[in-house]
Formats: sequence, C-alpha cells, structure tokens
Amino acid sequence: MKSDSRSIGLFDSGLGGLTVLKSLAQAFPEESFLYVGDVARLPYGNKSPETIRKYGEQILHFLKQRDVKMLIIACNTASTVFLKETAFAGLPLFNVIGPGASAALNATKSNKVGVIGTSTTVQGHAYEKTLKALRSDVNVYEQACPLFVPLAEEGMVNDEVTQLMAKRYLAPLMSAGIDTLVLGCTHYPMLKADIAQVTGAGVTLIESGDVLAKIMQAHFATHGGAAPVGNKSTLQICTTDVTSHFARLAQTLMQPRTFGELERIVL
Amino acid sequence: MKSDSRSIGLFDSGLGGLTVLKSLAQAFPEESFLYVGDVARLPYGNKSPETIRKYGEQILHFLKQRDVKMLIIACNTASTVFLKETAFAGLPLFNVIGPGASAALNATKSNKVGVIGTSTTVQGHAYEKTLKALRSDVNVYEQACPLFVPLAEEGMVNDEVTQLMAKRYLAPLMSAGIDTLVLGCTHYPMLKADIAQVTGAGVTLIESGDVLAKIMQAHFATHGGAAPVGNKSTLQICTTDVTSHFARLAQTLMQPRTFGELERIVL
Repeated sequence: MKSDSRSIGLFDSGLGGLTVLKSLAQAFPEESFLYVGDVARLPYGNKSPETIRKYGEQILHFLKQRDVKMLIIACNTASTVFLKETAFAGLPLFNVIGPGASAALNATKSNKVGVIGTSTTVQGHAYEKTLKALRSDVNVYEQACPLFVPLAEEGMVNDEVTQLMAKRYLAPLMSAGIDTLVLGCTHYPMLKADIAQVTGAGVTLIESGDVLAKIMQAHFATHGGAAPVGNKSTLQICTTDVTSHFARLAQTLMQPRTFGELERIVL
Repeated sequence: MKSDSRSIGLFDSGLGGLTVLKSLAQAFPEESFLYVGDVARLPYGNKSPETIRKYGEQILHFLKQRDVKMLIIACNTASTVFLKETAFAGLPLFNVIGPGASAALNATKSNKVGVIGTSTTVQGHAYEKTLKALRSDVNVYEQACPLFVPLAEEGMVNDEVTQLMAKRYLAPLMSAGIDTLVLGCTHYPMLKADIAQVTGAGVTLIESGDVLAKIMQAHFATHGGAAPVGNKSTLQICTTDVTSHFARLAQTLMQPRTFGELERIVL
C-alpha cells in the first residue's frame, strides 16, 4: 500500500488535545504531527455551537493549507459540532466521540456507561446519542465537570482539591453503578489518577487518545497512507497566542518526544 | 454644571465586570450603563498583553460608536495594558487598578498590602508598581489565584472547595501580616465571603466596584457630566457570544436592577 510521509493535522482549543497527540505520537513514532492549540480563544466549552464551528473550520482550513494528510479534531467540544462529517476539504476527518463511544461499549459488562465532559459536551448529549445509536438499550449517565479543565491546566494532579471535586462530580454516576467511564474531554486524562482514586479498579476509564490510535491503525491497514518505514518524523506545535504556561506544560506532557519552537499563527 | 444623560460604557472579558457594574448601578441609580462582556474570547488572564490590547481597543471603539459619555475598563487584566491612559478616542477612560491601589493605601495601617489576581495581572506587577509609585515604602505581597475565576463562574460560593483554595492561596500573605487585601480581579467579589472566612475581620478587603464609585463621584463633582436628576436610566448588556450560563448569572448578580434581552455583538 502507498505510504505518505506528510503530517497528521490535529487541533484543540488549548492544551487538552496534547493528551491525544501524546497517545498518537507514542503509537506512531514514524508519523509526523502538526498540532494547533487555539489558546487565544479557549475555552470552547462555554461557547455556542455556531462560534465553535466557525473557529473549527478556520483551523481545519489552516491545516489543509499546511498540506497535512488527515485531520483529527482532538477536542470533544469541537467534535460535537463535526460529529457526522468523515471528510473535510477532501481530507479524511476524525473526531474523538465516535471512537470513544465504541470503546466504551466494548468495555462495559453492566451496560451502564458514564460520560464526563464540559458543560457544552454534556448538554449536547453527543456521547449519549452516539452510544444509543450503536446500542439502543445502553444506559448512559452524563455529568459535566466544569472545574476539571482549570484543575488540569493548573497541574493540580494527585491533589486533595481535585479528588474532592471528582468525588462530588462522580457520586451520582457511582451510585448508578457504572463500570465504564468515558473521559469525554481531552484534558481529563491529565487527572486520570485522581479520577481513578474515586472510581476504583472496577471502572474502566476510556481515554480518547488511546482509542483513536486503534482507529487510525485500522485506517492505515485498510486505506494505506501511513508514513514510510524509517520516516524521520517531526512534531510541530502552533498556537494562536503564545503563553509561557502553554509552552511549559506542553514540554512536560510531550516527553520523551520533543518539538521545536512553538509557532504563533494568526487565523 | 452640565448634566449628560448618555450611558457609561464598561467592559470585561466576561462576567467578572458585572460586580463593578453592580456597585456602580447601586451608587448611581440615575445613570445608564452599557456593558460589554467579551464572552467569546474569555478568559483574558492567560493571553498575551498584545492580544489583550487588541481586544480591548476593539471594544472601546464599539462603546465610542454607541455614544457613551465615558469608558471604564472593568477588568484588571485589561486594565494592566491601559494603565497610564486617562482618555481614549476623546472620552475619559478609567481603569480599576489606580483606584484600587489608592484605596488600599488609605486602608492599611501595617503598611503591608496583599494583592490577589489572575496570573497575568500578578506577573505584570501592575498593582505593586502602582502602589509603590504612590507610596515607595509600602510592602506588597502578590498572589495569583487562577482557580478563583472558574470557582466564581461555577457559583461555588460558601463552598468547602473554594475555602480550601482560599486557604492555600492566602497562606503566604497571612503569614506576611497583611491588613489589607486588594481583590485584584473583578470576579473575586463573588467569593468575598469565602475569602473573608480565611482572612478574618482584621483584613480589609478592597473591591474595585466600590472604589470606582467613589472616584466617579469625585469626577462628576469636578467635571460635571452626571445624569440629570430624575433621569430614566437603562441598563444594557452586550456579549460577543450568547450563553445561557452568562444570562442566568447576570440576572442573579444584577438584582434588583433589571436589564432587557442580552444583545449579541460582533467585533
């Protein structure tokens, strides 16, 4: 099958999608990635669907202009407004919601799936709709966790406050008897340890990046287009604003893969 | 002196400035106000000064076009980048930092003033510089409280988690022996009860809105331009994005004064 050394393009409103980039970069060491963090306009979670669609299209066009080979929306909130689209400007388009829903259904035995996300993601019921479309009798318990993003951005991992909030947010889901929990926001894997402390070992946590890596493996196997063997891969990160906070957290998160100077872009 | 029935224009990145609007609307029941909340691009606290200046100028031009009689930057982060300017496009311009610093110096007896704010406000040391310019030997203790904005926006008032964070953030300031604390972010008055629980009665809390009301009283007394007696005042709120969250919190915050439909504007 034909190989393709061009980059994989992905974006998020900010740092969160870096957890997806990290999973993919680990799974595909020979692939190059071009990441856009729309830091100037984050967070997306409390914006209207129209605004999020406008921002998303601007970034997808930017990635297309940079000649990427495929597009990934590494942001749950943005994924909700591009849910049914599998292509954009002639390129394959992936979102994080479909893959997350499939993985949750594979994992659950009690048929009770919890979903946590931003207010917009939860209010849009994108996961619930996708889960029910795949298995109509599944029980879905959704919970918005608006403080998780700032807690993750502040690096408050293994922290009393984060665990208090996790206990509060997750109490109704635990009472309902879920055995699978979709981390429906790309920031949440940063708080995985705190969340797992509350859910315990009996609940499987579903993380977008890991799930997406499997989907892409299948895509390359079917359609080709993976990087050629021995490809000298690169990692490039663009942001719509430059903040030292972003640069610092990105360096820590992406280890051991490294990237050059952050590139500031105007959309 | 000449009266002027035109509105007073003010803006913030989001909800926070409504605490300033509330103070001013209470102090001046006959004045009309036009408020802009730049919800589509909030928060400002983690953006670069260049970006914040660009956004601020767009909004000030918008307010000028709407024929307001004066301009107030009801946002500490935005105030830092307009600190020295007293006029914009021919209109008087007020920020919240100068007034807050003066009030703190009037209040302190120990000559030890604490300042809490967003990361950008604290890293720019705008309060420290302004305080020291007014009284060179004052001791200033600054502390960024990045989680206070999301906690306020979530309405987590009189809450265990908010008080835990307040204790953590304020510990070094309390150890230093401050007797005055500037709430250097317009969101923070919403958490005043939780903050006061940690500081106790021995620390005076300085709130931008109350301080600004006094400054404006003095301005009207000197320069005129207050609304005519018996003026039928109005309250108008514009946002760059419409979210039900904003509308709900604004209604609660602004009581007993009411406003009409939120107006969506494009900048």
